[in-house]
Amino acid sequence: MDYREELEPVLGDDKLARKPAEDNENRGKYNGRRIANDLNSIYSTDLLPARDGEEATKQFLQELVNILLAYICKSMKPGSKVLDFHHPHQLKEGLEGFSLDLPDRPENLEQLLVDCQDTLKYGVKTGHPRFFNQLSSGLDIVGLAGEWLTSTANTNLITYEISPVFLLMEEVLLQKMCGIIGWSEEEGDGVFSPGGTMSNLYSVLLARFHRFPEVKTKGMNGLPRLVLFTSEHSHYSVKSSAAVLGIGIDNIILVKCDERGKMLPAELESSIASAKAKGLVPFYVNATAGTTVYGAFDPLNSIADICARHGLWMHVDAAWGGGLLLSSRHRGKLQGIERASSVTWNPHKMMGVPLQCSAILVKKKGLLQSCNQLNAEYLFQPDKQYDVSYDTGDKSIQCGRHVDVFKLWLMWKAKGSEGFGAQVNHCLENAEYLYCKIKSRPDFELVFNSKPEHSNVCFWYLPHSLRSMSPGPERDRRLHAVAPKIKARMMEGGQTMVGYQPLGDKANFFRCVFSNPATQREDVDFLLNEIARLGHDL
Amino acid sequence: MDYREELEPVLGDDKLARKPAEDNENRGKYNGRRIANDLNSIYSTDLLPARDGEEATKQFLQELVNILLAYICKSMKPGSKVLDFHHPHQLKEGLEGFSLDLPDRPENLEQLLVDCQDTLKYGVKTGHPRFFNQLSSGLDIVGLAGEWLTSTANTNLITYEISPVFLLMEEVLLQKMCGIIGWSEEEGDGVFSPGGTMSNLYSVLLARFHRFPEVKTKGMNGLPRLVLFTSEHSHYSVKSSAAVLGIGIDNIILVKCDERGKMLPAELESSIASAKAKGLVPFYVNATAGTTVYGAFDPLNSIADICARHGLWMHVDAAWGGGLLLSSRHRGKLQGIERASSVTWNPHKMMGVPLQCSAILVKKKGLLQSCNQLNAEYLFQPDKQYDVSYDTGDKSIQCGRHVDVFKLWLMWKAKGSEGFGAQVNHCLENAEYLYCKIKSRPDFELVFNSKPEHSNVCFWYLPHSLRSMSPGPERDRRLHAVAPKIKARMMEGGQTMVGYQPLGDKANFFRCVFSNPATQREDVDFLLNEIARLGHDL
Repeated sequence: MDYREELEPVLGDDKLARKPAEDNENRGKYNGRRIANDLNSIYSTDLLPARDGEEATKQFLQELVNILLAYICKSMKPGSKVLDFHHPHQLKEGLEGFSLDLPDRPENLEQLLVDCQDTLKYGVKTGHPRFFNQLSSGLDIVGLAGEWLTSTANTNLITYEISPVFLLMEEVLLQKMCGIIGWSEEEGDGVFSPGGTMSNLYSVLLARFHRFPEVKTKGMNGLPRLVLFTSEHSHYSVKSSAAVLGIGIDNIILVKCDERGKMLPAELESSIASAKAKGLVPFYVNATAGTTVYGAFDPLNSIADICARHGLWMHVDAAWGGGLLLSSRHRGKLQGIERASSVTWNPHKMMGVPLQCSAILVKKKGLLQSCNQLNAEYLFQPDKQYDVSYDTGDKSIQCGRHVDVFKLWLMWKAKGSEGFGAQVNHCLENAEYLYCKIKSRPDFELVFNSKPEHSNVCFWYLPHSLRSMSPGPERDRRLHAVAPKIKARMMEGGQTMVGYQPLGDKANFFRCVFSNPATQREDVDFLLNEIARLGHDL
Repeated sequence: MDYREELEPVLGDDKLARKPAEDNENRGKYNGRRIANDLNSIYSTDLLPARDGEEATKQFLQELVNILLAYICKSMKPGSKVLDFHHPHQLKEGLEGFSLDLPDRPENLEQLLVDCQDTLKYGVKTGHPRFFNQLSSGLDIVGLAGEWLTSTANTNLITYEISPVFLLMEEVLLQKMCGIIGWSEEEGDGVFSPGGTMSNLYSVLLARFHRFPEVKTKGMNGLPRLVLFTSEHSHYSVKSSAAVLGIGIDNIILVKCDERGKMLPAELESSIASAKAKGLVPFYVNATAGTTVYGAFDPLNSIADICARHGLWMHVDAAWGGGLLLSSRHRGKLQGIERASSVTWNPHKMMGVPLQCSAILVKKKGLLQSCNQLNAEYLFQPDKQYDVSYDTGDKSIQCGRHVDVFKLWLMWKAKGSEGFGAQVNHCLENAEYLYCKIKSRPDFELVFNSKPEHSNVCFWYLPHSLRSMSPGPERDRRLHAVAPKIKARMMEGGQTMVGYQPLGDKANFFRCVFSNPATQREDVDFLLNEIARLGHDL
């Protein structure tokens, strides 16, 4: 196995900076050198299951792992770039020989490794401590190990027969999460789904079935006009669910929020009353625990009171905020969540689990099964030799499902509940630090002036030219153009990434979110200074 | 980096058979020995992004990779076991110290590696050449490399901003697949979704929106009673879609098939006529290209004629059969697919791509976008610096999506279209070999006597006691019990795995499917001999 010694240098950190294919001549020469066993003349058909394919398989995968390890180490360095931006047309033209085209004839293994390096090179380092662009960020090493194992096991979360360990892990995780929400042992059920939007869709589906079980067989035709309630600041997945499920977006009633982005219970109450007065049939309320933009927590107990009074299904979209339940310091912000009929909770957001990992948790046992089961005979044979209640695939609307549970399970082993709590606390401390910094600087302005409840901080950068302008439509118009211009320059520079958006009548503002434990205070400082550097002349 | 030399033995093939923790005393000693750098006293908090965490990170991931490489090599050996079966209660009790419980306090890295080994040990080797249990099987090494890279890149398929390379790869793949279907350059759109069931759901959603665009805003309330058509042998995801979308399972009209499992066009025609006569509104027909159990191909051209005549959306569920399009020898079986309005095609089935990888392809450009877009401002800002038509996340009903495209892209580079074709041919040759073997043996009986069109072969095993019985309810009753008993013994023995099910009035029969290129004729022989060995005394 000489190739290992030969590959050793690749593990050095800045070797990847020496991009393999600086020009087309070098194409196919991974890192500019030839490899001992000559992957240049080996093809995928030489890998396992080919007879004698073991050595080639190990060599190829080991080479790939070396590339990945170098990438990981580089991603975590604050001074390295977050991205190397190119426009779509540039990437499509085949930068430095990186061709996206799909061939008729096979390429050799060395070329594949070059393709892998190029793919990483032109991508975005979401694990970088200065990537603040999405609710999901960071690269948890144990979670990553979990993903590597999951893809090696390559099975389907559907029957105990083919996923014995993973199905039991799913059960253990769901029970743990239901317990943390505060449901009793007789309560609590759930399923992992492909993302928070799908989990929220499950919640509306379940609420409708719970109220009108005949909808599964008869459809919406005989039903009265159903309406559901969610706040102006809630995630657009509630709209999407209404569109998909045949309820219709117009039948969503958006409830007003306070200036902080929290749903106003009095507004919910009056919206329900006015819907009823019009002959509409309310059946579902979505409360958000951690809104996407402001990071606001709706007042769950007040909303639960209203839902109880009107007999409505209360869903809590804690996709973003669920992680706070693991912090004794912050879990009070979700008080009342135990009164929900269902909860969406995405460990791939605040808990730092690699994408994707989202759970829909349901208080009432058995409802998922009765809502979704179709008893396909080729999968769910009743005459198996084991306890078929573990064939839980029929609870989902997906048939087979990707195994999203193992990485979470392994991370839980690695950190313990306490470790997750510490991670959440660290992210929220960063948010508070950013909030204080912004308050103290004249060139930044908060979108709303109160301490962050979650890790979202929303703010404007004010270039010199705007600082002395008095508020009004002209200032707003000019302010609106600032964030996109800074973002464009930021992406060209590639040192950091943060998102922006308008909201209601508010001009484009930046939203910084923290979910990456790698981020430190100096990275927060860097972000503000970088924005100021990029925008001062605007 | 001494640990590498020290770890070398782990790469030997049967080292994993020496299970690390034979008893509780050995818990925490990975493979019964201590590791140089002592992962026993290192925790996840010592890994990156911890300061000086680089070495520990490389060591931990390298150890994990060694475990995975050993597992992969072992999985591919025909003589090794496919599974080591335990009942749910046994696994939950903590076999040999393997505890599924989630701790409050962290566990050390060595313990995590032991947990990883145990997870693999008690799982099912779906890449094993004698695993015939699911439509998805095999372990493609290049696909696996693709998954390892994907999870390391850990990003979300939603905006070009955070997934530039992967979104372009999705576009390239979708264009390629649309071209292979036979759509012109002006036609063809699509999105990768989390599995065939979701892809089929997309098709019904699109068909409904195409006919009644107001459903997105108004819901199903004002609509007439919609009905859809699919064959008795089609996948249950069509039912699931009707339940989820608010159409209702009762509004699915199941069309009769011939004895081979193909939809009878005359039956479709008369079903449509009779639905119309009742005042129902047909809008969608699902034709299957490769049914789940029999592997049958519906006559697509005849069905397309009927759909054209009645103005109905024609969907082709080619989740299982789509791969045959890459074989010049077999693609004729899908003749007429180019006339479909939409197609489901799962590369994770017949093309051997690791789970999950499924595409919904749509003939009409722009329809996915208009059906599903909600223009969330925090994601799809119109004032970005790049061509925002590449922010294709709004075409999906999922918001963020797992990156399922890279592994397929990399496999396509590795094999070329030709390599996929050869792989499909090999699997279908195995099926034909099995079919011929069964015909020649008195102890096996085919469920229907015609050469397999896909790689499905359905058959009964007849123990001595049944061979001389005349057909009738008593023989059926006894035959029905045979397959479950053999399957139970098969799983206890762990040498192979194949599925069984009843269908209509047919007693439980085995369904063998081939999608694993690792499978050779001796494995097919083994399956039959093993079934006979396990069942001869029944």
